[in-house]
Amino acid sequence: MALVQARLAELSAALGGQLLGDGDAVVTRIGPLETADASTISFLANPRYLAQLASTRAGCVIVAPAQATAAAARGAAIVCEDPYLALAHLTQWWAARTRPVAVPGVHASAVVEPGAHIHASASVGALAYVGAGAQVGEGAVIGAQAHVGPGARVGARTRLAARAQLGEGCVIGARGIVHGGVVIGADGFGFAPVKAEGGRWEKIEQLGAVVIGDDVEIGANTCIDRGALDDTVLEDGVKLDNLVQIGHNVRVGAHSAFAGCVGVAGSARIGRHCTAGGGAIILGHLEIVDHVHISAATVVTRSILKPGQYTGLFPFDDNASWEKNAATLRNLHAMRERLRALEKKS
Amino acid sequence: MALVQARLAELSAALGGQLLGDGDAVVTRIGPLETADASTISFLANPRYLAQLASTRAGCVIVAPAQATAAAARGAAIVCEDPYLALAHLTQWWAARTRPVAVPGVHASAVVEPGAHIHASASVGALAYVGAGAQVGEGAVIGAQAHVGPGARVGARTRLAARAQLGEGCVIGARGIVHGGVVIGADGFGFAPVKAEGGRWEKIEQLGAVVIGDDVEIGANTCIDRGALDDTVLEDGVKLDNLVQIGHNVRVGAHSAFAGCVGVAGSARIGRHCTAGGGAIILGHLEIVDHVHISAATVVTRSILKPGQYTGLFPFDDNASWEKNAATLRNLHAMRERLRALEKKS
Amino acid sequence: MALVQARLAELSAALGGQLLGDGDAVVTRIGPLETADASTISFLANPRYLAQLASTRAGCVIVAPAQATAAAARGAAIVCEDPYLALAHLTQWWAARTRPVAVPGVHASAVVEPGAHIHASASVGALAYVGAGAQVGEGAVIGAQAHVGPGARVGARTRLAARAQLGEGCVIGARGIVHGGVVIGADGFGFAPVKAEGGRWEKIEQLGAVVIGDDVEIGANTCIDRGALDDTVLEDGVKLDNLVQIGHNVRVGAHSAFAGCVGVAGSARIGRHCTAGGGAIILGHLEIVDHVHISAATVVTRSILKPGQYTGLFPFDDNASWEKNAATLRNLHAMRERLRALEKKS
Repeated sequence: MALVQARLAELSAALGGQLLGDGDAVVTRIGPLETADASTISFLANPRYLAQLASTRAGCVIVAPAQATAAAARGAAIVCEDPYLALAHLTQWWAARTRPVAVPGVHASAVVEPGAHIHASASVGALAYVGAGAQVGEGAVIGAQAHVGPGARVGARTRLAARAQLGEGCVIGARGIVHGGVVIGADGFGFAPVKAEGGRWEKIEQLGAVVIGDDVEIGANTCIDRGALDDTVLEDGVKLDNLVQIGHNVRVGAHSAFAGCVGVAGSARIGRHCTAGGGAIILGHLEIVDHVHISAATVVTRSILKPGQYTGLFPFDDNASWEKNAATLRNLHAMRERLRALEKKS
Repeated sequence: MALVQARLAELSAALGGQLLGDGDAVVTRIGPLETADASTISFLANPRYLAQLASTRAGCVIVAPAQATAAAARGAAIVCEDPYLALAHLTQWWAARTRPVAVPGVHASAVVEPGAHIHASASVGALAYVGAGAQVGEGAVIGAQAHVGPGARVGARTRLAARAQLGEGCVIGARGIVHGGVVIGADGFGFAPVKAEGGRWEKIEQLGAVVIGDDVEIGANTCIDRGALDDTVLEDGVKLDNLVQIGHNVRVGAHSAFAGCVGVAGSARIGRHCTAGGGAIILGHLEIVDHVHISAATVVTRSILKPGQYTGLFPFDDNASWEKNAATLRNLHAMRERLRALEKKS
Repeated sequence: MALVQARLAELSAALGGQLLGDGDAVVTRIGPLETADASTISFLANPRYLAQLASTRAGCVIVAPAQATAAAARGAAIVCEDPYLALAHLTQWWAARTRPVAVPGVHASAVVEPGAHIHASASVGALAYVGAGAQVGEGAVIGAQAHVGPGARVGARTRLAARAQLGEGCVIGARGIVHGGVVIGADGFGFAPVKAEGGRWEKIEQLGAVVIGDDVEIGANTCIDRGALDDTVLEDGVKLDNLVQIGHNVRVGAHSAFAGCVGVAGSARIGRHCTAGGGAIILGHLEIVDHVHISAATVVTRSILKPGQYTGLFPFDDNASWEKNAATLRNLHAMRERLRALEKKS
């Protein structure tokens, strides 16, 4: 982490918190309670770590009102209603002071095709490509080697990181972040079987696009396919981690968040405020209502019409135990029949 | 979708169908029965949606002969033997009229190394790279920022989309499509353990290549590793979705198709006309015969020598129910023993 | 495979083995016993294939001392303590003679920002990008279209393949290999929920970096996220296959190796000499000690504090059998209760 000379009074004001302690004291880094020293500002977001509060050597701790007294007893504190949210704001404050700022303008090595419109305040990095008719909005940043296809539109203050790709005719709203290697707008996986010729596949051209709302973040190497006829849609505030696959014509509702390696097959409709843990798979042409939470590695094979947590994963075990249980599992239905037979007898 | 002014007579002729209705009527988009209006041409490919035929407001519907009378009763129709295949042809007709056409020639910003051969009719996009000794065939398209390694060969009319990568010495045949972010020809994962030094890994250089047939489509960010000694092979007509992993020395038979996030480990041999659902994993050094269908998220741990559908996934449930069943599962073998004991007693 | 005219005496010396047979005999390729001909050098690494030794037509076979007599009875042999390790060395010898060598210097089309330091012996390929303040070490190779972010550091003789990406401030040691499409240093997936506004997500800026040791290889399209506050760490000798996801603040111990499509969630700590099979998932904030081996497609949901092999995957079956067993599985807990009831009765 890049170091910053930060006065506690300044941080407290930025976070909208109440400072207990010396406003002129300085911290230079953010860190967890356990490894903090006097130059560190830390935070207590989870009461589970309350025991660490007494022993931490942090120069300052962000705490909730309920922990204010305990925190002040050991040193400086900033009291905030929601310490984890305050941490988020603190990291943003930090990043604004330590990250290189993109320079407005188009790098000499970038290629911008005729008919593209780049806002004067936007930045287009080295070796980036912007296709004909594309639009790059106010304050938007197109990273080095990134790609904006013909007719694509990048909203205000959205950032395509280095090597991100927004395909032809696709749209992303304001304040988005698209990480390296993302491919938005590749063809959906659509083919018609040609029975007469022994089963070769005839391509269904994918004529839709991808339409992404505001405040969406998309992790590295994630893929979002264009729709077959209509568009694939991510609503406002959606967050996708790395290596996620979103098939054609999927709709992901606002503020839903999927962890790494999640796959969503074509035409699934996911509600708002849903989450999916790493490696979960959601099959196609089904519906998931708002506020559904899918556990990691769970395979959703039918619609879910009731909010809640859903799970389906094989519990792991040492290999020998697993082998015995797995072998038995393959005869589970027969076991049930044997159980029934015994019940009838008894 | 980009709009087209399409006369029904023209479409009917293009699809080789029989037009019922006014050939001069015009449609401007393709869409599903449910949301179609008078400017839409729709299709009935699955008898499941037959009920929608009577109520659709589509300007024209593509139907099979069995539905011709019902379709004509409500408006214009194009009768085709296989309406889904006709839809595929219709999307191709549409794409040919709405997609930008690649301009033959090499973009000024592309880098073509000495000794590469680019056919005069081929197109090499902005910031693309073509290595020494590479060959790009007739009508082939190398997208912006795409990569053709030294000695690699791209067949006639094959398209590497923007940011696709065909590695050194690798080959793809005619009429292929390689989507953005694809990496063909990275090293396979091969190491020899060095026991004497506590288990470090010594690299086995991967000396083979990747050889891909005609009419193959490869989805975004999919990886196909080069072979260790011999080549990794995809036969004609193979279709891979996004984020698929194909290990070194795998052979995938003609016209097999894998959905997103499938992984195939090294040296697996997959037959022709096989399919694998999303997230399926096929372990290495095994054989799968023709016409095997692997369900989504299934892990294939041994050879499959008989055609058919194979499945192995944990059924999902609400979390509480899953927890109870999963806990019991960890004692399944013991349950079986208890069942046996009861059977002996009774 | 590119052919080489290799005298057996020369190969034997390079491998440090004992040659049995004519040192002037020449082989031109490496291949498996089964398909070898007189121009092929082959190897017997696994006693399982001993039967193939007698029948192979290979010009020379690398064998262990125990097989020396049997090998010599059929033709030339090179006797090495560890034939598989000798194969690794042989492939390296081969690659050194057949692979194009990177030319030191910066390609005219590459962009190197002011303040970057490129060692005079390093190579920066066509259309590559090296950010401000980055360092590229002695003999390092930055492939065509690859990306080294501002302040990033590439160790001596490390190779970023074409289209690989090392993000801002991230570090990789010596002799590493980073394959195409890899994204090192995208943001970790960190958000604070904003309860007051119905559940939107506030970004936690990811202020850490990624720090990678020596002799690490990273497969195509793999992602390694930067840490939230501290760094994400891969220790020396780690090997990652393609499409692997490593979340923020993960630590992977020295010489651990993960196969394709593995996902490791944030803050997991993996020991040394661990392995994970394809598609395995390791959840976040847990600990795995040294010498733990996770089977393919297994989901690790809690810490593992004892070395050994761990597994958790649903055995696959023909679809009909699976359906019966899976349906029963959803009532497994109830079955157990019924079994208990019977036991009480009997």
